[in-house]
Parts: sequence; C-alpha cells; structure tokens
Amino acid sequence: MASTVEGGDTALLPEFPRGPLDAYRARASFSWKELALFTEGEDMLRFKKTIFSALENDPLFARSPGADLSLEKYRELNFLRCRRIFEYDFLSVEDMFKSPLKVLTLIQCLGMYDCSLAAKYLIHSLVFGSAIYSSGSERHLTYIQKIFRMEIFGCFALTELSHGSNTKAIRTTAHYDPATEIRDPKTLLPMPGVMVGDIGKKLGQNGLDNGFAMFHKVRVPRQSLLNRMGDVTPEGTYVSSFKDVRQHFGATLGSLSWSRVSIVSLAILNLKLAVAIALRFSATRRQFGPTEEEEIPVLEYPMQQWRLLPYLAAIYALDHFSKSLFLDLMELQQGLASGDRSTRQAELGREIHALASASKPLASWTTQQGIQECREACGGHGYLAMNRLGVLRDDNDPNCTYEGDNNILLQQTSNYLLGLLAHQVQDGACFRSPLKSVDFLDAYPGILDQKFEVSSVADCLDSAVALAAYKWLVCYLLRETYQKLNQEKRSGSSDFEARNKCQVSHGRPLALAFVELTVVQRFHEHVHQPCVPPSLRAVLGRLSALYALWSLSRHAALLYRGGYFSGEQAGEVLESAVLALCSQLKDDAVALVDVIAPPDFILDSPIGRADGELYKNLWGAILQESKALERASWWPEFSVNKPVIGSLKSKL
Amino acid sequence: MASTVEGGDTALLPEFPRGPLDAYRARASFSWKELALFTEGEDMLRFKKTIFSALENDPLFARSPGADLSLEKYRELNFLRCRRIFEYDFLSVEDMFKSPLKVLTLIQCLGMYDCSLAAKYLIHSLVFGSAIYSSGSERHLTYIQKIFRMEIFGCFALTELSHGSNTKAIRTTAHYDPATEIRDPKTLLPMPGVMVGDIGKKLGQNGLDNGFAMFHKVRVPRQSLLNRMGDVTPEGTYVSSFKDVRQHFGATLGSLSWSRVSIVSLAILNLKLAVAIALRFSATRRQFGPTEEEEIPVLEYPMQQWRLLPYLAAIYALDHFSKSLFLDLMELQQGLASGDRSTRQAELGREIHALASASKPLASWTTQQGIQECREACGGHGYLAMNRLGVLRDDNDPNCTYEGDNNILLQQTSNYLLGLLAHQVQDGACFRSPLKSVDFLDAYPGILDQKFEVSSVADCLDSAVALAAYKWLVCYLLRETYQKLNQEKRSGSSDFEARNKCQVSHGRPLALAFVELTVVQRFHEHVHQPCVPPSLRAVLGRLSALYALWSLSRHAALLYRGGYFSGEQAGEVLESAVLALCSQLKDDAVALVDVIAPPDFILDSPIGRADGELYKNLWGAILQESKALERASWWPEFSVNKPVIGSLKSKL
Repeated sequence: MASTVEGGDTALLPEFPRGPLDAYRARASFSWKELALFTEGEDMLRFKKTIFSALENDPLFARSPGADLSLEKYRELNFLRCRRIFEYDFLSVEDMFKSPLKVLTLIQCLGMYDCSLAAKYLIHSLVFGSAIYSSGSERHLTYIQKIFRMEIFGCFALTELSHGSNTKAIRTTAHYDPATEIRDPKTLLPMPGVMVGDIGKKLGQNGLDNGFAMFHKVRVPRQSLLNRMGDVTPEGTYVSSFKDVRQHFGATLGSLSWSRVSIVSLAILNLKLAVAIALRFSATRRQFGPTEEEEIPVLEYPMQQWRLLPYLAAIYALDHFSKSLFLDLMELQQGLASGDRSTRQAELGREIHALASASKPLASWTTQQGIQECREACGGHGYLAMNRLGVLRDDNDPNCTYEGDNNILLQQTSNYLLGLLAHQVQDGACFRSPLKSVDFLDAYPGILDQKFEVSSVADCLDSAVALAAYKWLVCYLLRETYQKLNQEKRSGSSDFEARNKCQVSHGRPLALAFVELTVVQRFHEHVHQPCVPPSLRAVLGRLSALYALWSLSRHAALLYRGGYFSGEQAGEVLESAVLALCSQLKDDAVALVDVIAPPDFILDSPIGRADGELYKNLWGAILQESKALERASWWPEFSVNKPVIGSLKSKL
Repeated sequence: MASTVEGGDTALLPEFPRGPLDAYRARASFSWKELALFTEGEDMLRFKKTIFSALENDPLFARSPGADLSLEKYRELNFLRCRRIFEYDFLSVEDMFKSPLKVLTLIQCLGMYDCSLAAKYLIHSLVFGSAIYSSGSERHLTYIQKIFRMEIFGCFALTELSHGSNTKAIRTTAHYDPATEIRDPKTLLPMPGVMVGDIGKKLGQNGLDNGFAMFHKVRVPRQSLLNRMGDVTPEGTYVSSFKDVRQHFGATLGSLSWSRVSIVSLAILNLKLAVAIALRFSATRRQFGPTEEEEIPVLEYPMQQWRLLPYLAAIYALDHFSKSLFLDLMELQQGLASGDRSTRQAELGREIHALASASKPLASWTTQQGIQECREACGGHGYLAMNRLGVLRDDNDPNCTYEGDNNILLQQTSNYLLGLLAHQVQDGACFRSPLKSVDFLDAYPGILDQKFEVSSVADCLDSAVALAAYKWLVCYLLRETYQKLNQEKRSGSSDFEARNKCQVSHGRPLALAFVELTVVQRFHEHVHQPCVPPSLRAVLGRLSALYALWSLSRHAALLYRGGYFSGEQAGEVLESAVLALCSQLKDDAVALVDVIAPPDFILDSPIGRADGELYKNLWGAILQESKALERASWWPEFSVNKPVIGSLKSKL
C-alpha cells in the first residue's frame, strides 16, 4: 500500500528491515507512512528526523549499554547534552513563536532519548528562560541570549520543605535573584547568606539535579524583580499593571498551564515508547498454541490485546488533545502579549486552567498504569533494565506530582465546573466558554433524561456512543456534586470541610469524566473531519471508539447507579465492544506502532527494535554488556576451601 | 492503655520516642502492644526482635545513605549478608518443620531489611535446598549441610529465553547437575559444554544476580537426578513411585505452591513498609487548613484517608490469609512426607494450588498499586530515593511475574472452579473441598436469587455484608463463565480458543472474586473469634469491613449488571461505607502502623521514622549524604569565561 502515499519521501520514512514483524505489517489495513504524514505533516516529520539524526550521530549522545553511571557522571553528561542541544539550535526563540507545535515535538524527541534531558531543557528554556522573557521587562532581556547559550543557567524554586501544594502559605519573603543566581558567577560558590545543597537521588530523572536553597537575610537589588506584571518603585511601593486582582490571577493561571500542558506531552512520549516496546515484543514472542507443536504470538491472545491496545488508542487520543490544548494556550499567550484585557481572555485563561489541571492527571496516570501494564505484559524480559520499561516508569513518575499533586489538581477542575453551575442556578447564566468545552451543559436537564439505547455490539463500535454517555455522566456528576456540597453546608460544614467531604466520591470523578469527555470529543471530531484520507478512516475510527469506550467502562458502576444503564445487556455490550475493537485493531497494531516509535537508537530497547529479531537483539545486548560472561571479581574469597565461621547464635 | 497489656514485656515492645505522632497515638482506640501480642504472639515477637537486633548491630548490615553501590558491589554484599544469615542460624532445618510460621517471619524480617536478601535466602534454602531435601533421595542428603553453610550455592533454572509460562514446551533435554553446579568447584569456572553469563541489571532486586546457562551436549551422571518421585534405572528406564499421572501431577502442584505462598508474604512485607512510611508522613505533614493561619495534618483529609487506609486494612487481611494458607500447605506437605496417597490429599493439593495461583496475583497487584499510591501520597518527599518507596516498588515488581505471570496464573483458579461446576452438572457431584473454600457453591441457585438489602450506611459497616455480596458474585461469575464457555464451543471454537475468549471478561474476574472472598472470609472469621480481646474487637472489625467493602466496590458494575444491586442507593451506600470506615480508622492509623512497622533501622526511611520528626529527620539524612553541600566536581569546565561553541546547525 506504500504506493498510495502522496508526497511520501522514502528518505524521510524509510522501509523497515525485513524480519519477524513482516507478517503483521503485511496484514495492516492501512499504510503507516500515510498515517504518519496525516498525523504529523511532512515539515514536522523532517524536523523530527533532523533531531533524531543529530543525536544518533553525535558521540556525546552515544548509548552505553550496561554501564552503571554514577549520579554525578549522569548529571554532568545531561548538562553537557543540554548545552549541546542549544548549540544545535534546532529551534530558535523566533521559531518557537512561529511554529509552536515544534516546541512540543522538540520536547518529545529529547524526552524519547532521555527524560532528564527533556526536563532540563524544558526547565531551563521554558520555565526559567520564558519567565525572564514574559515576566521581565527590558532591563532583563540581556539575559535571554546568555540563557540560550547556557552561560547562565536557571532553576525553579517554588516549594518549601514544609510547603508544596499550599504555595500561598509559603513563609519565604526573600526574593529570588536571577541575575547573580545565588552563586558567585566566577567561582560558582554560594553568595553570603545563601546555603545551597543537593537533595540526593530520586526515583527517576536523575540526570536532573534537584537541590535546595536557604536564604537568610539576603539582599536582592530591586532591579532583579521580574516586573512586567507587578513592580516595586524606588520608594518601596508595589504597583501592578492589572486594575483587578481577579484579572491578574487569571493571567498568572495561564503561566501555570504551560508546565501542565508540557507534562501531558512528557507523559505521552513515555507511553509511546512503552507501548511500542510491548507491542513489538507481543507480535514476535510466541507462547502456547492450539496444538503442542504450534506456538502463536502472544498478541493473538485476547488477554494481551485487552492489556495493551487501549493504551495504544490512548496515545493517539491524548497526543491529539495535548497538541490542540497547546495551540489554545498559544492563543491565550498572544492575547496576553497584545495586552488583551477582555472578559473572553480571562474566561479563556480559566477554561484552559481547568482543562490543563485535569489533563495532566489523566495523562500522567494513564501513562503510569500503561507502562506498568507494558512491563508486566513483557514478563521477565520487561523486568530487564536494558529493555527500558523501568526507566520509563521512574521518569514518568514525577509527572503525577510536580506542578500539583494529581488529586489536588483535579479540585481546580471540579471547582471550575461547580462555579459555572452556581452561576447558572443563581444568575440564570448560560454555560458558555471560549473553547466550548462546557457549552453542552446548557442542555443538562434534557441530557439527564437520556438512557443508553444501544443493544448490539455492532452499534456500539463508534465513539459517538461513548460521547453521549460521557455527556450524561458529566451532567449527572455535576448535579450530584452540587447537591452534595449544598447538603454538607446546610448540615453545618464550612466551605473547606464541605469540599473535602465531596471530593473523593464526587469532585474527583467529575473532573476526570469532564476531561475524558473533552479528549474523546476532540479526537472524535479530528478523525471524522472530511480531510481524513478514506484509507485511514476505519483505523482512526476504531482507535477513537476504543479509547472512548475503554475509558467509559471504568465508570460503568456510575452509569448503572444513575440509571443511564439498566439491565444486564448494557454492561455486556460495553465490555464486548471493547474486546471486539481490540480484536479488530490487533492486525494494525504493529503499523500503528511504526507511526509513533522513534528510530531504534532512540527507542533503545532490544525487545522493541523495528526488525523484530527479539532473541537475536536480546542476546546481542546481553553479550555487549561489559561483564556478562566474566566470573564475578569477588568470588575468589568464597572458595570452598575457606572455612565458614561458626554459628553466631551464641553472640546474640 | 498500656497497663491493660497482659504479659507485655517493655523490653520486647518498647515505648516510642515522644514527638509529633503523640497526638494520634493518644487518640487510638486500642493498645498497639495488645494488638501486636494478639496478632503475633510473644514467641514470634521475640523471634523478630532477635533477627532485627542482630542486623542492626552487625556492621555487615550497616546502611550507607547516599552511597550509589555498583551492581557488583551490591551483589557481593548481598551474598556476604546471606551467608551471614546462615551463620546466625536463626532457624535450623528442624525448627522450620516445628514452627513453620517462623519461616514466613524470617523471610519477612529479611525482606524488610532488603528484598534481595530475602529472595536470595529463599531461593537458596527453600527452592534449591528443599528441592534437594524433598525431591532427592538419601544419596543427595550429604549436600544439605553444605548448602546451609553456603559452601555450595544453588540457583533455579526453569525458563528458556523463548519459554517462560509454557514450561511444558521447553526444548532443553539436558539435565541439571546440582552436585558440580555447572562450574568447577575449585576455580568456579564453567565446566566444558556449559556457557554461563549474567543477564544484566533488572528493575529491582539487583542484589540478586540472575544469569543464564547454556548446555551443549553436557553429560550429567545419572546419580545427580533428584529421584524421590521419578528415577532412571542404570538401564535407562524411567520409573515413578506414583501409579497415576494425575496423582503425580497433584503432588508436583504442591511444590509449586510453596513459592507462590512465599511471594504473597514477600509482597505484603513491601506493602507494610510502604504504608508505614506514608501514614507516619501523613500524620505529621501539614498542608492547608480551615483558616489561613492553621494547617492540618494531611491524614485529616478524606482524600488522603481514602487513598491509604484501605491498603492498611489489606495488610491485616492478606497477612492473616498468607499465614493460614502457609499452614494449609504444611498439612499437604506432611501428607506427602507420610506417603498419603488418598483422594483427599490430591484434592487438598488442587485446592491449595487454586488458592495460591490467585492469591499471588492478588497480593502482588495490591502491593504494586498500594506502593504507587503511597509514593504519590507522599508527594515530592515520596519521590526522594532515600525515603525508600521507589526501591520497594521495584523490588515488589517481579512478584507480578515470576512463578507465573499474574494473568496467566488466574486461569489456574478459574479452571479449577469450572472443573468443579462441570463435575456437578455432569455427575451431580457436591461442591466439597478439604479447606471448604468452595462448599458454599452447593447453594448457588438460591444464592443467585439474593439481592442487596442494606439501605443504610450504618448497616453496611460489617464484613458480613461484603461476604454475602461476594458469594453472590462468585456464583454469578461462575455460571456466566460456564455458559459463555459452552456457547463459544457450540459456535465452533476449540477448547483452547473458547478459554482464551472467556478469560478477560469472565475467567479473570471469577478467579479474583473467588480469592478475595476467601481472604475476606478467613479474616472475618479470625476477627470474630471468641478469643479476640474485647478492646480489639472494634478496630479489627473495622479493618475487616474496610478491606472487604473496598475490594467489593471494584466489582460494583458487575453487582449492578447481574441484578444484585439495583437503584441509586446500593452504590451510594457502598461508597459511603468505605469513606465512613476510613474516617473511623484515621485516629487508629498510627497505632495500627506501630504494630506492623519494623524498627527505624530496618524501615530505613527518614519520613517514616517512629519519632515523627519529619523535617528534622529528612534534613539530617540530606546532610548525611556525602556530597550534599559540595560544589559538583565537574562544574569548573562550565565557567562563564569559557567560550561557547558556535551553532552546529550547519553541520546537520
């Protein structure tokens, strides 16, 4: 089917080496090259290839299988690599604003090589650099060039030892000085009054050094304050360019969303790698079979399909969502830059904040669970460090915590929805938001009367079925949460207590259902656009339906409880539809992986290589480890001739 | 309340240091010492103390905070430590048979220190040593003493690179020679025809070295075959002491159960450590509060209670189950040793096999999810390596895979139940098993007519409610699975295909529900015994109800689907009961942790120490790390005066 690709450049999308994966590749219902071009576009594919090739050909990025890097060595390497990325100048500051999605692509490409590298680049350029760029005024812009050469490097200091989530209660009143950076620029030793140190090894992302800084009566020049939104005059008076605290807060919310939306992208890249590894393994690993002589690929088992294929679908749906939300955020940023002080701008800030605060938990948890499933689905091979699933899990883990603990962040989203309902109930306001994610709520009384009417699996194989169910679910949970909250308040709870009592059973599922609906809605619309090539419609429709129904099935108990589902058939149809879609997608799985997997050098997993030569690759990697066949150096002292010390029992 | 402890030895159960945890300790509804004595007994507490004190006072077991041990150094240390454990002679071979639960306790104590140590000890003594002991005949017994001195050390070789789960299809036909152990006993170099090597780093348990062995036309003396159950005569004829293949298979199933039951115990010890760390952290960590001035411990939030307390309850329920199943297995073993060839003995083997095959998945998954929840519930502090949650997660991970992938093992259990139903349908046989775990199924038509009748949360706070629901659920799933299987076969599927098609939606939940029911049933009976001290009845009853209802709530969709639940109230009552029990248990949580947590030296987590001095301990540990305050050695080359290399873009 490769001949159907228009504009397909063989150098851009080379053929895969022949091997054990050929059988599945031949059975795919579509051309992976066509899907790659449709999903990314030629320009972006070329951009990715540039980055991947540069890393593969640069000795600084050489992989060292089996080497046990020390913490310090790893951090040094990561620093050197990050600086080298700036030297490559893949994306200039101007390009970032011209082709914003390239920022996400660059982060994904770097993260596919090593999450620590992406995180260091992201914090240095986007968090540190763009804080200076967007919150500083002209007097700070001289630093920008130095930042992008890593002549000065930045860190992000927000939490205290005793304050993480509750940043409002932070007790530090000293100000951060980005100009001298805490340490003396010549010797890099700390300045007087500043104590800095390292917090030690973490579970993952150890190429990134996290430290602490203590400030004791440190004087910082007034000029160092980033003063675009608020400043201190020479006389010591605080002035702000915002008339209204609420608007100022809305603008600040926008800057918090950047990191959260980037984290969605970081999480997805980890899931892409894990699923690519696990599915290529599953297509080549054979175990058991219909007869004693014949063993079949484990991907043929409905159990293995059910364990892995929903995560493949999740990648496509969430990846599309993260790109679209990133573009929404760019719109917000442009409004901010052009001085837009409209109500729409403030509402856009709040809507994006609500979506980012729930999609970061959704993406990081989906990835956490997905990597774990991939690890287990690859059995003992998945447990080998060289196959990379452990590192992916560890590197993804902080995505669940930083920029807000997932469970706490979800409150931002449920509070947003509850605020809209209160506004409607009290003032008769319509549900309207700039991105239209809440507009359907206007019809909530009618939606709540709907029931699940699908009676056959065949009628269920479209994401429209899940969309209708999700809309009902969000309306139901919103009404229930609102009632429960008011009931708690009427029985004497303070607002603080009432919200805490409602969060587990109501607010949390409400926020998750709302963001899942938005992800499903956007991907559903995307795959049903007229511009989708006919040959891709079937596979994209199945991915959309699988992700939607699989996500929905976790809410089956609520669908029954609220009366949307009734009878045995509803639950059975939902479950059978998920399994039917898995079965329909299993022959496309390898080709769908070929679209999202980076080159072998970047993927760096013997069991996930594109040639599918599972055992040959694994065996080669084991022998490549420096000491695989050596006798352990410490064995001599355990020679059998050495007498064993007597029982120590008497010493106890 | 300490005065109510009878026979309480202050030296055995010393008071905890005073500190921030005092408030919760004072609010506990029971005496932790009394519960420790009830749960373990004085003899076992003394045994634990002996082991823990020996490790704490032996320099070989010194903790080295912040040290980044190389793979090789870690393996060497682990080997030395394992040998030292044998030298301590905590438990002689004779003692093992006299006080079998001490075997589990020893494994848990070693595992609490380091999982790699427990695994090495377990594999060497129980898998290797007991294989020689129970499958060998007199000519092999001379090795036993050498094994227990670690003069010879063993490994377990079952899988092939291409065969893990499907061991029947293994292609190796050479025999393993435990006497020469593959390597020359003098030089420890491999013997001719044998190639051995190391498979490299794993995600966890890296103190344990996993290797590979290749045999090419290796001659092994006939005398090396472990010949208790089957032998080869000098003429080359295979002979077995079992008349009947089915009986021989039943006996072999018993030996597989040992490892699985041990894994249940390994998993639980990891969960004990993780929950102890997370709950002590939650009782001392304050964040937000009803007013801006006052911050409250995060344990006061219903969300934090709901995230952690069900896992605390799971520890108590699963720990009791693992001990009781271990004793059942001892009964089986004794029957085997005394030459019992009865039908009951064979049925006991099959029942234990079914329970072990499902409880290993249940315990390892509960622990996997529990550690992850603990890690996230401790936020960034949980992500710091020094707090140990990462290592616990990595070390627990193989429990999901070895001795059978969890999902594949569950088939053993569903097949067992389906076999019993087929026997009943075809031959009118009663449901009867030696341990009575299936006896209730005899009444399945009546059970299937039952409905959930509880209408208030107060009536739901007892594990009897969950027990009734679980019995209905198992009956429902068993009937559905049986019907679905027959339907698949009638529509032309082979037995192999039909089972694969039913496993995801039917067999898997059936096996899990059955083992959860058995765990709930045994713990329910345990806490309702007349011998339970009155002062402990309330807290134990709540733990039993919480574990039961929380586990059950994951099946809520099935309860609705099959008609056991109907209406909004059923689901609401179940959810509210779980939250109510969490709230009732939160003041007991610290005391319940005090019962299960090992001494601080063993727990080895600054945020989990018994004194609750969260920040002091964390700060102390950070400063103890060798290089916390040092300037990184590799920084000089990044002096700002060094010119940055120009853009590399042109080279691409």
